[in-house]
Amino acid sequence: MRQSQMFIPTMRETPTEAESLSHRLMLKSGMIKQLARGIYAYLPITQLVLNNIQDIVREEMMAIGGAEVHLPVLHPKELWEESGRWQAYGKELMRLKDRHDREFALGPTHEEVITDLVRDELKSYKKLPLTLFQIQTKFRDELRPRFGLLRGREFIMKDAYSFHIDEESLDKTYHDMYDAYSRIFSRLDLDFRAVEADGGSIGGSHTHEFMALSDIGEDTIVFSETSDYAANIEKAVAPKPESVSDEALKDSETIETPNVKTVKELADFLSVNIEETTKTMVIKADDNLKMIVLRGDQELNDVKVKSFFQAEVIDMATDEEIIAELNASPGSLGPVKASIPVYLDYQVAAMRNYPVGANQTGYHTINVNHDRDFQAEGIGDFRFINEGEMLEDGSGPAKFMRGIEVGQVFKLGTKYSEAMNFKVLDQNGRQAPVLMGCYGIGISRVLSAVVESHHDDKGIYWPKSITPFDIHIITANTKDETITETAEKLYDILEEDYKVLYDDRNERAGVKFADSELIGLPVRIVVGRGAKDGIVEVKGRLEEASTEVNIADLSTYLTDNNYA
Amino acid sequence: MRQSQMFIPTMRETPTEAESLSHRLMLKSGMIKQLARGIYAYLPITQLVLNNIQDIVREEMMAIGGAEVHLPVLHPKELWEESGRWQAYGKELMRLKDRHDREFALGPTHEEVITDLVRDELKSYKKLPLTLFQIQTKFRDELRPRFGLLRGREFIMKDAYSFHIDEESLDKTYHDMYDAYSRIFSRLDLDFRAVEADGGSIGGSHTHEFMALSDIGEDTIVFSETSDYAANIEKAVAPKPESVSDEALKDSETIETPNVKTVKELADFLSVNIEETTKTMVIKADDNLKMIVLRGDQELNDVKVKSFFQAEVIDMATDEEIIAELNASPGSLGPVKASIPVYLDYQVAAMRNYPVGANQTGYHTINVNHDRDFQAEGIGDFRFINEGEMLEDGSGPAKFMRGIEVGQVFKLGTKYSEAMNFKVLDQNGRQAPVLMGCYGIGISRVLSAVVESHHDDKGIYWPKSITPFDIHIITANTKDETITETAEKLYDILEEDYKVLYDDRNERAGVKFADSELIGLPVRIVVGRGAKDGIVEVKGRLEEASTEVNIADLSTYLTDNNYA
Repeated sequence: MRQSQMFIPTMRETPTEAESLSHRLMLKSGMIKQLARGIYAYLPITQLVLNNIQDIVREEMMAIGGAEVHLPVLHPKELWEESGRWQAYGKELMRLKDRHDREFALGPTHEEVITDLVRDELKSYKKLPLTLFQIQTKFRDELRPRFGLLRGREFIMKDAYSFHIDEESLDKTYHDMYDAYSRIFSRLDLDFRAVEADGGSIGGSHTHEFMALSDIGEDTIVFSETSDYAANIEKAVAPKPESVSDEALKDSETIETPNVKTVKELADFLSVNIEETTKTMVIKADDNLKMIVLRGDQELNDVKVKSFFQAEVIDMATDEEIIAELNASPGSLGPVKASIPVYLDYQVAAMRNYPVGANQTGYHTINVNHDRDFQAEGIGDFRFINEGEMLEDGSGPAKFMRGIEVGQVFKLGTKYSEAMNFKVLDQNGRQAPVLMGCYGIGISRVLSAVVESHHDDKGIYWPKSITPFDIHIITANTKDETITETAEKLYDILEEDYKVLYDDRNERAGVKFADSELIGLPVRIVVGRGAKDGIVEVKGRLEEASTEVNIADLSTYLTDNNYA
Repeated sequence: MRQSQMFIPTMRETPTEAESLSHRLMLKSGMIKQLARGIYAYLPITQLVLNNIQDIVREEMMAIGGAEVHLPVLHPKELWEESGRWQAYGKELMRLKDRHDREFALGPTHEEVITDLVRDELKSYKKLPLTLFQIQTKFRDELRPRFGLLRGREFIMKDAYSFHIDEESLDKTYHDMYDAYSRIFSRLDLDFRAVEADGGSIGGSHTHEFMALSDIGEDTIVFSETSDYAANIEKAVAPKPESVSDEALKDSETIETPNVKTVKELADFLSVNIEETTKTMVIKADDNLKMIVLRGDQELNDVKVKSFFQAEVIDMATDEEIIAELNASPGSLGPVKASIPVYLDYQVAAMRNYPVGANQTGYHTINVNHDRDFQAEGIGDFRFINEGEMLEDGSGPAKFMRGIEVGQVFKLGTKYSEAMNFKVLDQNGRQAPVLMGCYGIGISRVLSAVVESHHDDKGIYWPKSITPFDIHIITANTKDETITETAEKLYDILEEDYKVLYDDRNERAGVKFADSELIGLPVRIVVGRGAKDGIVEVKGRLEEASTEVNIADLSTYLTDNNYA
């Protein structure tokens, strides 16, 4: 393709408004342009790369027996009411009314639609298993869109859904998908890990996230240096204390603690370590208030809380709700004589004689002990693991790294088939709910993840598997006829075997070189003064210097150096 | 691909609710499923064909220097206000509010978005011409969605936009597009015509529609049997009368015409031919009432009316508006002493002594003559041409056929660049508005048009260029091991060179054969009892009988018969 016909509005300055490296680079190299918050136009270079990524994804999905479909963007409200998600999905679900005042959602995911699609057609286990996938634009009204394509409101997803008569069959497809995902991300040259993740409120289910390792990643991956263990920090089990404190129980006492609102202030006030304090949080699990007590230095992990209570929605209680229920402000809460159920983190369950809020603003009670001073409804793992703590597989201390979630495989079980009454006749002639799996890859997010990991200070360098073009031909001077003629001839010849971007623009050589580094094709061929002697200058994107190559030897040279 | 892994829910009965042949066939062959009115899921066979169609379109767009982009579905209201279309587009534009109450449209077309995209980046004529295209889901809230994918509310379009500094450059791209479209529709094996169409309110512009010939088509094409002339009936010029009547003027007279409401009733009442009557219509051109008088037997062509008045919107006046303005009901209107401007069709301008409504309910005036009894503001071509009338190119009588509009090429001129202030520096250093063209192909509609023209009473037959698979292998009996083994081996071998659908389902042979005819792959290979002797049965989709072929000769046989 001639660069004069492309639309690649590169920038000389680095855009300052962009929050991540990939966002900056994609703006600077003329790949994307924002139309509204979290909504981007994909310019020609981006589209070429996306087409390549989609081809790889499509190929790997078909290789494991997936059939491609294309489902509507507009989803009738009624289907989302069947699953209960019309309410539960909240403000992230974009909604509209048609000219007849019928309500629709813009699909953020397609469990409802695909279940509706197949339930009318699949009546017997004989038609199972079945795996359908699509590659499509999806919509999610993020509260805080950011990082360019990493967290947008309109984005491209590959989503797949599988249907099964039994666990064994679901297992097989789950593992096929897992392997296909590993192949896809390897082909995209991403440094990734598959990590265990939390299945949310879908009881007993199993899920892995595929994380592209990156400092910009919004997820923390907990991993072992000596075993295969890797989990999202939301899921990674925090170790239980090895033993319970054997301190003698002291008498509890309620004391005035003026201006003590944080655990830090409490520890200072009591002259103890923060690890010797506790903090009490009030959460709403599907509208039921619960009190959770953590050790003062730990953070509440709401995914674990949600899983513990098997809740659809977890929220922190508001100050108003807390005062209305407990008659004390959030800095002074505690489990003694609390009017709502109390749950202890394992760490607190092993403590003795600890301070808690007195449920009276400005007061704490010290030397409190559970079982004696209050009864806990339950004990659980409610906190995040810390780097260095022992991993649940016993392989050693937890290590942390950051990752961008680029894919997820998920056993849905019968969540949707039960809610939407999708049953088939099983081998015994009985109606059985169908087991489902769902499997997503964020196509536009993958693109960002590749850019995050494939750049230097001059710009992007594309993996060969998805590069928009194989070769960049540049004329150093468009006014020199020999140069132009040579470049045109070279372009014609190389186009037969390669995808070629030919910079035929009437621009200064310096501008063309800078653009070329930004755009980042694997190899650059400059047609300059050597043209009259049949010589061009060849440089791999990551190489410092060019090599002079005789045009007659060019093809061999490109192959030998594995450039294209 | 194994058919057991595909989702092809064919039907034995022909669905009765479908209104067109392609709609029925696509339902029956398990290609589409309706989710809501005018909103369809595309099942695997459809998706494979769509991918093929898109590849052809993409290839031809790139061959004329088009660069692919992907623009957002969500369009900020502000852009559509700049162009004035937020109001003008009416109820067909689907709209929503995001979580921050900002308004967006779901793009039905992308002139606003693409103009906004490039106006910030293109500042000089040196960056022109530029042609960008995309293939994308679009939304139009049709009042009457129908005919399956032919008129849906969510559909796939290829839309392209070009930008130019002068007419000459726009002309060149317009003709390149025209030729590319011709190649595309030829490759899709469509019997099509490019016809002149009306440019609407965009003054002086030029447009062609590409029509796939089909009885189901919603458009009427007017063409010549002896010249290249072809036009949409909305645009085709109706011939002017060759001479003006030389009848002597008679005295006009207002008479009571009880219960005469239609021209047929008027002709009967007056005992004249309907061609000797007139009818008076009141229309609103951008809110201005106008009266148009046609010969009694002709129909008003609102596209010509819109073009005549250079109006954005044309509506028929309501009964209430007519009575309020003229104090007479629609059956009794006429031009004499009318309080609004009067326009005559050329046919009426050539008449003498004709009857008109008296603007008094229940009365007509006979022997009326313009110039004497009233003054017309203008004379124009306001009617449809009739089959058999002389064509405007003088080549002979008009012939009619029906067509499905599958594509349109359009010179937009400066409509959007003026409205949205998109200017570049021209060769003389002056700010000049950019000329634009836009070019659409209805991808999902093309699919329907192909099915409309590629079927027999057993089902579809796909053009080789877009067939979902090249070859259909069918096992006649899955319980016979020799048959199954032979089929599996054949599948493996043929897959190396062809796209193969392998019907490995445990179904009766009759079911498989019927499905195979419905699905319509170019050639079918049945592995049956002959398998033990290395013999299979081969049949082209449109052939009546199979031929026994030795497996060893199969590859040659397929090539020689041009099956795949």
